[in-house]
Amino acid sequence: MTERTDASAPPDVHETVMEATYRALCARGFARLTMQNIADEADVSSSLLHYHYDTKRDLLVAFLRYLLERFEEKFEDTEDEDPEERLRGLVARMLPEDESVESDVGDGGTDAADDGGTEDAEYDRFGLAILEVRMQAPYEDAYREQLRTNMGVIRARIADVIRDGVETGAFRDVDADRTARLLVDALDGARSERVTLGDDDAPGEVAAALDEFVLSSLVADGGDGR
Amino acid sequence: MTERTDASAPPDVHETVMEATYRALCARGFARLTMQNIADEADVSSSLLHYHYDTKRDLLVAFLRYLLERFEEKFEDTEDEDPEERLRGLVARMLPEDESVESDVGDGGTDAADDGGTEDAEYDRFGLAILEVRMQAPYEDAYREQLRTNMGVIRARIADVIRDGVETGAFRDVDADRTARLLVDALDGARSERVTLGDDDAPGEVAAALDEFVLSSLVADGGDGR
Repeated sequence: MTERTDASAPPDVHETVMEATYRALCARGFARLTMQNIADEADVSSSLLHYHYDTKRDLLVAFLRYLLERFEEKFEDTEDEDPEERLRGLVARMLPEDESVESDVGDGGTDAADDGGTEDAEYDRFGLAILEVRMQAPYEDAYREQLRTNMGVIRARIADVIRDGVETGAFRDVDADRTARLLVDALDGARSERVTLGDDDAPGEVAAALDEFVLSSLVADGGDGR
Repeated sequence: MTERTDASAPPDVHETVMEATYRALCARGFARLTMQNIADEADVSSSLLHYHYDTKRDLLVAFLRYLLERFEEKFEDTEDEDPEERLRGLVARMLPEDESVESDVGDGGTDAADDGGTEDAEYDRFGLAILEVRMQAPYEDAYREQLRTNMGVIRARIADVIRDGVETGAFRDVDADRTARLLVDALDGARSERVTLGDDDAPGEVAAALDEFVLSSLVADGGDGR
């Protein structure tokens, strides 16, 4: 990480820049994105942006970290829910029709209802932009480390929920880490199929199959019956 | 498809060029690949290559079609197996440690045992190259159509195996298409996680989870017991 701590953006500027980065990624993708695009979108000067984030790479790493923080906040909001509710909610949040971390970012925190078409297009454009960043990961340590961290934390949180369910007897006894990995990678594969090949049904179909084979199976043999 | 039928390469030339394309993709990736690289690798003249395949795009589409044909041949070889064996074999073929369609192509048809490290590196390099082609699919109709065809046929073959199992009573009654999609997308997501983020465990862990939650579940409640 080359971010200079003495140059860290104040929280409100950071939030503004992160939201602008989201919008700029949706509008231009990753390859064509410039610091100037983001500065324009954030309505700040390009020199201010460079002062706080130095390079496009540093800014993108900060943005990937920001996405993870948003996930963590949303995840904490579900602490009162039981394991089954939490798991189903996490799966639902990776689907285009539903509220997602990303579309929240796009809304700048407001939950105004967009029409489905716009939200779906945003899901596809943003998903493609993130895949573009990921395709640079083999060549760029900073992206690879941050993306691995993001995947690892998301998977660990899901595994914790599964372990909770096993401990309380709501779920049957399974390998929580392995089960979490299946959930994350299957939804990731489906999203990639949708945003690269235009197969719009992929995320919903995979979520339905995960429900049938994984989520229902956890509960069916679990302690609380069903 | 802009391939000119009157310029189709004779079968032996086609096979040589396809194998050369595989090796060139492993060596250089997709973005840096040129027709000249492939001509050099195939030991044919660049003008011969252009005569038969016209552009790099046409050659890549032919290569994607060739991968599908190889899958179909391998799939037909398993016709005598029962549905459970066939399904397990299909999953195993998407894993790095195992013999795969791609490494067969790389071997030029011989099954000489490489050391695992080399085969793994080849799996990663080829997987990344194919992802690079796929990242062009949103902008290039020819890639998108061929990749959708490949995904669709692979999924349909797997669904047929599941339907066979349900009909003969070996499997419990499930939505074959949806189950096939989960298998394909989960393994695809895991492969992508491995080749972009270097998470070497992803394909094996996902395969183990699919075994536990999907394959075993199909058989456990199936007609022939287990």
